[in-house]
Amino acid sequence: MTSFRDDGEAALDWVARYLEGVGELPVRARAAPGEIRAGLPDAPPERAEPFAAVLRDLDEVLAPGLTHWQSPRFFAYFATTGSEPGILAELIAAALNQVGILWRTSPALQELEEVTLDWLAQLLGLPPGWHGHIEDTASTSTLTALAAARGALPDRRVVVCSEQAHSSVTKAARLLELEVRTVAVDEAYRMRAGELTLEGACAVVATIGTTSTASIDPVPEIAAACERDGVWLHVDAAYAGAAAVCPELRDRFAGWERADSVVVNPHKWLFTPMDCSTLWSRRPDDLRRAFSLVPEYLRVQEDVVSLSEYAPPLGRRFRALKLWAVLRCHGREGLQRIVREHVRLAELFESWVRAEPGWEVCAPRLFSLVCFRREGGDEENERLLERVNESGEAFLSHTRLGGRYVLRLAIGNARTTEDDVRRAWEALRGGS
Amino acid sequence: MTSFRDDGEAALDWVARYLEGVGELPVRARAAPGEIRAGLPDAPPERAEPFAAVLRDLDEVLAPGLTHWQSPRFFAYFATTGSEPGILAELIAAALNQVGILWRTSPALQELEEVTLDWLAQLLGLPPGWHGHIEDTASTSTLTALAAARGALPDRRVVVCSEQAHSSVTKAARLLELEVRTVAVDEAYRMRAGELTLEGACAVVATIGTTSTASIDPVPEIAAACERDGVWLHVDAAYAGAAAVCPELRDRFAGWERADSVVVNPHKWLFTPMDCSTLWSRRPDDLRRAFSLVPEYLRVQEDVVSLSEYAPPLGRRFRALKLWAVLRCHGREGLQRIVREHVRLAELFESWVRAEPGWEVCAPRLFSLVCFRREGGDEENERLLERVNESGEAFLSHTRLGGRYVLRLAIGNARTTEDDVRRAWEALRGGS
Repeated sequence: MTSFRDDGEAALDWVARYLEGVGELPVRARAAPGEIRAGLPDAPPERAEPFAAVLRDLDEVLAPGLTHWQSPRFFAYFATTGSEPGILAELIAAALNQVGILWRTSPALQELEEVTLDWLAQLLGLPPGWHGHIEDTASTSTLTALAAARGALPDRRVVVCSEQAHSSVTKAARLLELEVRTVAVDEAYRMRAGELTLEGACAVVATIGTTSTASIDPVPEIAAACERDGVWLHVDAAYAGAAAVCPELRDRFAGWERADSVVVNPHKWLFTPMDCSTLWSRRPDDLRRAFSLVPEYLRVQEDVVSLSEYAPPLGRRFRALKLWAVLRCHGREGLQRIVREHVRLAELFESWVRAEPGWEVCAPRLFSLVCFRREGGDEENERLLERVNESGEAFLSHTRLGGRYVLRLAIGNARTTEDDVRRAWEALRGGS
Repeated sequence: MTSFRDDGEAALDWVARYLEGVGELPVRARAAPGEIRAGLPDAPPERAEPFAAVLRDLDEVLAPGLTHWQSPRFFAYFATTGSEPGILAELIAAALNQVGILWRTSPALQELEEVTLDWLAQLLGLPPGWHGHIEDTASTSTLTALAAARGALPDRRVVVCSEQAHSSVTKAARLLELEVRTVAVDEAYRMRAGELTLEGACAVVATIGTTSTASIDPVPEIAAACERDGVWLHVDAAYAGAAAVCPELRDRFAGWERADSVVVNPHKWLFTPMDCSTLWSRRPDDLRRAFSLVPEYLRVQEDVVSLSEYAPPLGRRFRALKLWAVLRCHGREGLQRIVREHVRLAELFESWVRAEPGWEVCAPRLFSLVCFRREGGDEENERLLERVNESGEAFLSHTRLGGRYVLRLAIGNARTTEDDVRRAWEALRGGS
């Protein structure tokens, strides 16, 4: 059997070559449904195989089934980046294999998570003193916040959000058996705060950076209404929250400092590998009431509240390590530089669309997402999108606005350059 | 700025040295509460720092706050292993940064997860054709199963489990607003099936390998009762499930093939780095009814059900890669060899305790966990445990059985040898 160091060298070389070459690969996976499965044996091996066999099959079997989220021309959904410091921190986290159950099962995990969340709150301009912790995804962060809200206001069984809120709100409400009341949006896809009714509501989810258009709900008005009625305000800034590192974009976050909880996903636009969703709350005692359970076999002498008392799972990975590495190896300046460049590139793309006859921008561009379409019917735009995606040159996704099929170009990969955006635009125009 | 390859070499070397030397480190973290936090700056850096600074602070600041789960003398809770193939697969997964939302966002992630879960089901002797997927922890797997059960039987609001069931059952029930009805256990800490009443119950959680003693509920009798009343049977084999790879231990799992869902945690006793919890169900449609939501921006042409439709979070990491690497690089034989050795070492330790005057074994030993104590009061045993844990020579945990304080020695680290178990025993005897 080869040694860990030899296998490690091979894995590291594989990864380095992947990152060096990912920009040349077709972005969306080319495999047909079932194709990857068909290339794998039906049964597990009886005897140990060398790690080299794993690397070989990664190339020979799995590769066609990879959609390259690390590609600089990945523009679908919200584009992400697993940056180099985050990748290497994940290697170390896996080797340390910390299991955060109690503070004593990994004081470093718990305290680094607390410190890193404080750092990130400072970078984003969130109020000092909020309690922060990491969940896997925004689905879980929002579920956690809404569970606390339900517990705090047990006689109210309604969650209010705009019709543009993320599907995770409905998913969490279903699990919590809360009713979802949706509020209509205005022409810029913002919740119509005037139509907000909080009767029976335990929580409102306001979104800064909705999934379809990155629109911003009027958080100050919503916060005022929530404060009047004692309703929990959860702000979903899973994608856009990262932009708060830039002072010139901070005005878009007005009012989130009045929230009861805020979710931001560093695995979206903060260069942290999947998965890492950060949740802050000014009301940690309500989270704790919803989730704390300490059975006998977990009773200890030290008087420290463990992070698992604020969250659905008992055990947690050492996710803080990658977030810490990302914040340190970019610094505030580095994070700002990339976010600014992404916003600039989105502005540029928007200007190309506006200048081109037969094309239109379909929603205000506030961050790094552009919603647009070509003259013609929905089918034509759908075909256009499919043609570009199938070409492998770029990968975009779609939404539907006012009943119309709309294309989305989301910039969020740290490797994306102006040339990459231009190539996507040329593919779109050429493919029309 | 240094290159990824240089930083990668440094990280890999750090990891290799860590794994080579972890056996010599004091097992439990020596830091006092707040000590790690105090060693870290209050504010994030303005400018980018080199990755070398992260590695330096890992040694200089974080190291005293690490509890060494990778140590061969980690015997607390359930001991785990982040094995080498799993560690390197995590490096690759972070570099690929796949985000499993829809099948098309990573066909390789979805299909490898399906295949790997099929492989593992075969290794464990679970029935063919069950639907399997990966969650972060057993807390989430059990929550998922119970949410499906609640949805399938909406008029029944009770979950039944033994008083020895894991706290995650109560935590899930709280989130789902189900009532927990506990059933007493017999002298071997098994649920008294004769006392099972299923009135109003939507689910029973039976445990194979309880947390305190690794006892086994009488699953065949429980399954028969559930079948009679149409109640969902969820089997929690989070720890012990791994032992089903050994045919000679398979009889301990009688009846789990009649369950509606089964959870096993490869991150516990199957050498897979944290986090990886596998959930199988014969009733995937009920899971899907509980969790499926497909908003417009996620509608696609291909007719493939994505794994996120069976689980609470929308996005998933490429966890299957590490599980696949672990299964391949160990093979069935390799997994069996380690599990058998752990059971042998636990038997050996048990025999030492039995042979030693003044010590007693406190529960039947069925897998790799020994529950024992020394003559004398609870305080004496508690002091003994604390003395051994503080010495750094080994790390054990405790539980309470029949009101008495009991020590637990759990074997589950792949690096553990007979010599390590002997050292723990000597520390316990010497420290008495």
